[in-house]
Amino acid sequence: MIKLFISSKKFQNFIATLIVINGIILGLATSKQIVQEYSSILTFLDNTIIAIFTIEIILRIYVHRLSFFKDPWSLFDFFVVAISLVPANEGLSILRVLRVLRLFRLLTVIPQMRTIIAALLGVIPGIASVSMVLLLFFYVFAIMATNLYGASFPQWFGTLGESMYTLFQVMTLESWSMGIARPIMELYPYAWVFFVIYILIVTFVMVNLFIGLIVDAIFTIKGEQKEEKSKELQEIELLKEQVQELKQILLKKSENDNT
Amino acid sequence: MIKLFISSKKFQNFIATLIVINGIILGLATSKQIVQEYSSILTFLDNTIIAIFTIEIILRIYVHRLSFFKDPWSLFDFFVVAISLVPANEGLSILRVLRVLRLFRLLTVIPQMRTIIAALLGVIPGIASVSMVLLLFFYVFAIMATNLYGASFPQWFGTLGESMYTLFQVMTLESWSMGIARPIMELYPYAWVFFVIYILIVTFVMVNLFIGLIVDAIFTIKGEQKEEKSKELQEIELLKEQVQELKQILLKKSENDNT
Amino acid sequence: MIKLFISSKKFQNFIATLIVINGIILGLATSKQIVQEYSSILTFLDNTIIAIFTIEIILRIYVHRLSFFKDPWSLFDFFVVAISLVPANEGLSILRVLRVLRLFRLLTVIPQMRTIIAALLGVIPGIASVSMVLLLFFYVFAIMATNLYGASFPQWFGTLGESMYTLFQVMTLESWSMGIARPIMELYPYAWVFFVIYILIVTFVMVNLFIGLIVDAIFTIKGEQKEEKSKELQEIELLKEQVQELKQILLKKSENDNT
Amino acid sequence: MIKLFISSKKFQNFIATLIVINGIILGLATSKQIVQEYSSILTFLDNTIIAIFTIEIILRIYVHRLSFFKDPWSLFDFFVVAISLVPANEGLSILRVLRVLRLFRLLTVIPQMRTIIAALLGVIPGIASVSMVLLLFFYVFAIMATNLYGASFPQWFGTLGESMYTLFQVMTLESWSMGIARPIMELYPYAWVFFVIYILIVTFVMVNLFIGLIVDAIFTIKGEQKEEKSKELQEIELLKEQVQELKQILLKKSENDNT
Repeated sequence: MIKLFISSKKFQNFIATLIVINGIILGLATSKQIVQEYSSILTFLDNTIIAIFTIEIILRIYVHRLSFFKDPWSLFDFFVVAISLVPANEGLSILRVLRVLRLFRLLTVIPQMRTIIAALLGVIPGIASVSMVLLLFFYVFAIMATNLYGASFPQWFGTLGESMYTLFQVMTLESWSMGIARPIMELYPYAWVFFVIYILIVTFVMVNLFIGLIVDAIFTIKGEQKEEKSKELQEIELLKEQVQELKQILLKKSENDNT
Repeated sequence: MIKLFISSKKFQNFIATLIVINGIILGLATSKQIVQEYSSILTFLDNTIIAIFTIEIILRIYVHRLSFFKDPWSLFDFFVVAISLVPANEGLSILRVLRVLRLFRLLTVIPQMRTIIAALLGVIPGIASVSMVLLLFFYVFAIMATNLYGASFPQWFGTLGESMYTLFQVMTLESWSMGIARPIMELYPYAWVFFVIYILIVTFVMVNLFIGLIVDAIFTIKGEQKEEKSKELQEIELLKEQVQELKQILLKKSENDNT
Repeated sequence: MIKLFISSKKFQNFIATLIVINGIILGLATSKQIVQEYSSILTFLDNTIIAIFTIEIILRIYVHRLSFFKDPWSLFDFFVVAISLVPANEGLSILRVLRVLRLFRLLTVIPQMRTIIAALLGVIPGIASVSMVLLLFFYVFAIMATNLYGASFPQWFGTLGESMYTLFQVMTLESWSMGIARPIMELYPYAWVFFVIYILIVTFVMVNLFIGLIVDAIFTIKGEQKEEKSKELQEIELLKEQVQELKQILLKKSENDNT
Repeated sequence: MIKLFISSKKFQNFIATLIVINGIILGLATSKQIVQEYSSILTFLDNTIIAIFTIEIILRIYVHRLSFFKDPWSLFDFFVVAISLVPANEGLSILRVLRVLRLFRLLTVIPQMRTIIAALLGVIPGIASVSMVLLLFFYVFAIMATNLYGASFPQWFGTLGESMYTLFQVMTLESWSMGIARPIMELYPYAWVFFVIYILIVTFVMVNLFIGLIVDAIFTIKGEQKEEKSKELQEIELLKEQVQELKQILLKKSENDNT
């Protein structure tokens, strides 16, 4: 009975509505003025919603038991609600910020949204291997940049981590020349070789990653077409067999006639 | 008779020419020098054109009656002409600026332009659901940014609205690192996590949105192909039936011969 | 005989080599130091090459006569060589700069390059109509921007021309927010509406222009496929006719047998 | 025996593991603090790994002999290991930086990675010819920019090389307007013509390059489809022959019957 209740359309719509209301509350709570005036109402509503979410999750665990923890959507719901329940003390103030992630439950509650997210995630395996190559390039260039420019430009290439961040920025082409490369070129006139090669390789790989995704998508459509094509071939095969049979009958008859 | 007149090619060309002339007038009116010297002529011409447009709209309403208001193109024409008729006083100076929108009537008057605009608008439903997901991401990240950096960087993340604008800027990759992320990282060294994750997610979703559009366009072409394919299958089917008939005749004849 | 000579592969290779040498000379001539030392040699070589080009063009006009001026490639050659012959006095110093365009003759001399340029130019009609829509948007937004911000920010939106340039810059997303929109928003807090709408519309149209090009390219491939498909349908049609004939023969024979 | 050993999966995994460890070591070596404390260990490990790599390369040369130097992957391995063995004195400090390239051996050792790199490199011939056109445009515009703005803006367009770098920056749209074009336009008001035309041409060619890649990728898929299609046509052809035979038999029989 609980199972029927929590999997009913009405209950899911109720949860979805709660998430939307929660989104509005969290949005309003970013304004200092509103927080000062309506603090108690906002906190009360937020806590109520968290309480309902917690009960919902408990009911779903009660119904599905262990299989609840095998479903990635359920696990996601579990964690974002769990984060909201952990008391956010000084040292873990980041948790208070992460509570907003709760709103992403809208993606797991509405089936159409789930489909989109599943489609988006389904693209990742196709780009995983090229991403690995990109990451290796990234890592090697970060080591080189740290060794080359780390001493003179510690704000950009001081550590391996800072180099990776700066190279990520260069990859997005943001201020790569006026902001980064030109100042470096004043000290190291040949720095342009490093940056131009890096940009050419990275954009080339990115473009190919992108084309790979398009081709994958087209392949999927082709797959369906191929099936239909093989159906056509089968039909022609059947026709051939029938004509063969006809010939057999005719030949036999001719023999009969001759005897 | 009026119907024939307003739907005649000549009349539509006349209106199109008027819009082009109006475009030139409005363009000239941006120059202070020209306005000072030829103010009266420009105003006279502009008012004349608005008058003609008004008469045209009235005639079209008279001819089509209620169905005029059901056609989105007509409604657009109605509103942009209506805006030009509202007197622009101090408080509504924005209306004077919006009068320029009248030039977009060129898109509704020329049939080829209409086709293009319809094609562009036809793409929107295909991206609507992914855009919803993007908007949710946008909203959640804006709340998080306001909570995290609103106090220290009120000029960028002071309110939810300002955060959304700044995140839109980051989405276009404009000055995201040198302008926004690096100054923040001086106070919050881990701010790069927020920005890198945000950029990765947003560009990933955008790329998938784009691929979705391409695949949709290809699917439309495939649709036509499929039709043709099924025609082929039908033809083969017909052939099979005929061969079947042949066999029947032969078998019957054999029986006849035997008896 | 002259015709055979100027259309011979050897002559074309000779001209191509000359253009490459000319390219190197013009490249070297950008260095003040080299010009000071080798001025006379460079000028002599450059003049010699221009002389040969002039003779070549004269020969081609002599051979092809009026049809020379009907071929766009020939016209291009004619104009870039003609520019080199006009004496560049003070008032026309731009002509000296345009002489470098002569190097583009490499594109018209090498057949493979011609193919590429023809392919690139062949794309233009496909984007012409959408570009017209884009230009109209551009123009309307430029008028609006001049009216709205021209008085306060004359360096960006002072005249219609300056507005168009600034909007072109915004279209490329270069410094649109930190450089243009944010300073304006300090005076006009709602300026973000203008810029965000402009960017959304422009990028949306650009993306669709791009998808249109991809679909066009795929359509061209499909065209070839369709031809092949119709061949298949024809074959099946022929088969059907033959089977029909068979049936006719059989039926006739049965009749014969019966009588 | 050595051949079996070095081509065994175990040995390749061992080398791959060594490269990963080497990557971690080289990453750690970018931190001054770690280098100061663990300098001797890091150097020892790095040298050991280089020694193993050297022995591996020697073994592979011993086994494959001259054919080793014909395989591009082997040549790559050879060079990156060779770079690590050259003593890096003052004048060749760049060699020490290039040692990191050794990590790219991961791409040649893991077969899946090799496939990806081969696919990426396989795209290059398809873009070579358009890239040549782009390079010519690049060169011509760089000469023009040097001639036009070299004297007034030596930091950007002083030499042909600097102009090419600046035009590369403009091609990536980084600070092209606020950083480069606007300052120049204060001296040369018509400089926008140069930059707008340059950007329009370059992005147009880039977009077409990209579409070319997509179409190429689709063509490859079509190639496979065409094969299957011709198989279909062959099948129909066979059917036709059989039906033809049937007719022959029938006609012969009719003749027989008549006599």
